[in-house]
Amino acid sequence: MLEVDLVITNVKLATMNPEIPNPYGLVEQGAIMIKNGKIVWVGPQSDMPQFDALATPLHDGKGQLVTPGLIDCHTHILFAGNRATEFEQRLNGVSYQQIAQNGGGIASTVRATRQADMESLFVAGKTRLNSLLREGVTTVESKSGYGLDCENEIKLLEVNKLLNEHHPVDIQSTFLGAHALPPEYKDSADDYIDLVCEQMLPLVAEQNLAVAVDVFCENVGFSYEQTKKVFTKAKQLGLKIKCHAEQLSNQHGSELVAEFSGLSADHIEYLDEQGVIAMAKAGTTAVVLPGAFYFLRETQLPPIELLRKHQVPMAIASDFNPGTAPLCSLRLMLNMACTLFRMTPLEALQGVTIHAAKALGLNDRGMLKEGLRADIALWDIEHPAQLSYQFGVSDLSNLWISGKLIQY
Amino acid sequence: MLEVDLVITNVKLATMNPEIPNPYGLVEQGAIMIKNGKIVWVGPQSDMPQFDALATPLHDGKGQLVTPGLIDCHTHILFAGNRATEFEQRLNGVSYQQIAQNGGGIASTVRATRQADMESLFVAGKTRLNSLLREGVTTVESKSGYGLDCENEIKLLEVNKLLNEHHPVDIQSTFLGAHALPPEYKDSADDYIDLVCEQMLPLVAEQNLAVAVDVFCENVGFSYEQTKKVFTKAKQLGLKIKCHAEQLSNQHGSELVAEFSGLSADHIEYLDEQGVIAMAKAGTTAVVLPGAFYFLRETQLPPIELLRKHQVPMAIASDFNPGTAPLCSLRLMLNMACTLFRMTPLEALQGVTIHAAKALGLNDRGMLKEGLRADIALWDIEHPAQLSYQFGVSDLSNLWISGKLIQY
Ligand SMILES: [Zn+2]
Ligand SMILES: [Zn+2]
Repeated sequence: MLEVDLVITNVKLATMNPEIPNPYGLVEQGAIMIKNGKIVWVGPQSDMPQFDALATPLHDGKGQLVTPGLIDCHTHILFAGNRATEFEQRLNGVSYQQIAQNGGGIASTVRATRQADMESLFVAGKTRLNSLLREGVTTVESKSGYGLDCENEIKLLEVNKLLNEHHPVDIQSTFLGAHALPPEYKDSADDYIDLVCEQMLPLVAEQNLAVAVDVFCENVGFSYEQTKKVFTKAKQLGLKIKCHAEQLSNQHGSELVAEFSGLSADHIEYLDEQGVIAMAKAGTTAVVLPGAFYFLRETQLPPIELLRKHQVPMAIASDFNPGTAPLCSLRLMLNMACTLFRMTPLEALQGVTIHAAKALGLNDRGMLKEGLRADIALWDIEHPAQLSYQFGVSDLSNLWISGKLIQY
Repeated sequence: MLEVDLVITNVKLATMNPEIPNPYGLVEQGAIMIKNGKIVWVGPQSDMPQFDALATPLHDGKGQLVTPGLIDCHTHILFAGNRATEFEQRLNGVSYQQIAQNGGGIASTVRATRQADMESLFVAGKTRLNSLLREGVTTVESKSGYGLDCENEIKLLEVNKLLNEHHPVDIQSTFLGAHALPPEYKDSADDYIDLVCEQMLPLVAEQNLAVAVDVFCENVGFSYEQTKKVFTKAKQLGLKIKCHAEQLSNQHGSELVAEFSGLSADHIEYLDEQGVIAMAKAGTTAVVLPGAFYFLRETQLPPIELLRKHQVPMAIASDFNPGTAPLCSLRLMLNMACTLFRMTPLEALQGVTIHAAKALGLNDRGMLKEGLRADIALWDIEHPAQLSYQFGVSDLSNLWISGKLIQY
């Protein structure tokens, strides 16, 4: 007789397990057994192994839908300051140039973030994580990138660590020192990249403050060569590789990620077939970010058909950040991925579960499967397509992270 | 000494009162006094009249921002059924025609709504109202329009009445019998309009079940002449006039509303200057619905510049409905109005306060002003532009409706 900590019964399972040969890996009348924070059994309720029914807590799902906890695999939740008045100025006709000249744009976020202490960043991060949690999100990637000097980049990564310790959502920390050029290095980007490679990266690796490294590879960001330099160092240090690539132009950052067997190329509106093929060969995930696309009113769509053709897994993330995507909602991204990018609800849900896990290099989550983390969302809906179709009506009934029932 | 029920102190006021000569009618260090559900005094805290401080409950706003409770002046929250699988089919390449042939589209919502009893519609409506309430919404317009026969249209309006009695949000009920052609009247739209005018409208008026009447005036809806017939009857019966106008083509429905001195023309993507001028003269409000524009991937923008030029007040609403705007969020509409329609954050906030009240013919709300309802939202933000700029991070601290503190 199986000894377990919790049994969830009477649920429809969207396992997202590709081994189950139907869309969403659906199991109509299912059950899940949890022990030590892991799924130890999942399947049709009629096949459920014997367990001690008197000694085991039981949760009756009342026929509702279960999915893996959602994963937001690309965010910038750690920043201080506020760009609302800048937003207002732009809509009142003030130019980007004028705003930048007045110290606005990313510079204002960097200034505010440098001035902020760890506690205020922690509180801001927690509030944002809570919002995602209430949408069923159980894993959040969080990037540095508004410190842009040794001290402040490390500070941000340490806040990630604190959040991971004190907040139920699991934080995956990414070092994005090469996010933008800090004011001190205006006109000397190569020197800044040296700082990133020679000082910041070794510290990050030594202190184990990040799983992955990311670079903003763009004509308004860092060049292909500079990006390559960062990736080379990161690889030496054992960090995984991610890239803001092909958002505004094709710099071949995605091919570079593939060359480094990196985890993901993110944004990729301007990715071409050559890049797609490189990613397919390398097993690199494409992370699409419809929130930034929407907010920037972009018209160049990511090459969804090419990604399908070459079977590159597609993940979807919020990209929550104060400049180009002030939308702290992964559920909204499901709708936007379908509405704006014409992805299917199945692709959308894969994009925030199994493929988002892959974009983070995690093989312990993203599906309902034996041996994986018991990150489980119970929804008061009948069909998984509803997660992408309807937005705004709260439909999360229960959430477990590592088998623990979460109050949200 | 003033006797009051509640004093809110230490707040920044976005009164939205145009008599205060700065954007948002801002008062930096303000206070509000409430008695019998109404605002009896509002202004700079230093000018606050004497009151019995020992006997009066005091709410310290801690420097946070206060706005009037938000108003969603165009919704279809009462419906049954679910169109998620249809959404999924479309994204998998099934045509609209094929879906309609299979009984999908609005027909499926009408079928499900007719089958639903009042209780299930009440529960669904309540859940949706709760979502809006949590965003600071205190007044919601709710249309019928998925019954499309006497019995079921009346049923929906009676659910509106029940919701108004049992839910803290104030419901403004609108009769939209002429929303679509019911299957029984396929190919005999004029006969259906006769039914609306001769049977439904008198019942609605007699039983006092709606404040206003609305018609979907469109080449795929009802014609100008049919719309006029409904408006004529409605006016005789003392009902106010609203119209789904110029969404997909210019049918001059907005001019018709103006001719009837109606409250609002809604959608209006295809409205021309002649129509704008007619609305300006008649004092008709333009209700823009960015959620439907987004979800339908429209490209024709509403004539914001012309509306500004002729000083037609612009309101913004969610249009929440299962077919063309499954987005139950007024806060998202603030962001979409700015992002997609290039409205300013000031215009956006006016659009869900003072102008939304006007679109509903209500002069007892939409501003923080003496004599008006004490519908008050307290936000943990510094500047009203943040309400339009950032989405998803919950920032509502407290909400009062008619002076009552709401638990949400
Ligand atoms: Zn990003
Ligand atoms: Zn509508």
